[in-house]
Amino acid sequence: MYSVQVFVKRRKSILDPQGKAVEQGARLLGYSGITDVRVNKQIDFTVNTEDEQEARSVANDFCSKLLANPVMEEFQIHLQKL
Amino acid sequence: MYSVQVFVKRRKSILDPQGKAVEQGARLLGYSGITDVRVNKQIDFTVNTEDEQEARSVANDFCSKLLANPVMEEFQIHLQKL
Repeated sequence: MYSVQVFVKRRKSILDPQGKAVEQGARLLGYSGITDVRVNKQIDFTVNTEDEQEARSVANDFCSKLLANPVMEEFQIHLQKL
Repeated sequence: MYSVQVFVKRRKSILDPQGKAVEQGARLLGYSGITDVRVNKQIDFTVNTEDEQEARSVANDFCSKLLANPVMEEFQIHLQKL
């Protein structure tokens, strides 16, 4: 079994409205030093296979099909054997 | 300036409906080996200070007040000097 960590981020060139809202929230709370806020997703799951290549390929497929929108987002995958 | 990475996760004992939905999506797409899906948040921001202690304390305060709900979620903070 492999434990998979996926980090999904909007591409740098794409505006992040959720991050902008958090930044405004920070300003309203008085944290004027907080800037460049980006809100990303981090998804953890387990892939039930003993083959690292297969686990990576399943995770990669799954990310492109369901977890990330490749037009706007990029993703990184970290595998760890359980 | 410090670059701050915050990882916000639901506590293990708390159900993650978004993760369950993704797991069901995986099953519908034919990925039966994918289980234990948890969807977390990862927030990046910059704190405009040269003092590491201050950066950590600002990030910590900001997380408890705005980014995480301490009743249901726990968070981890990683600092990096820019």
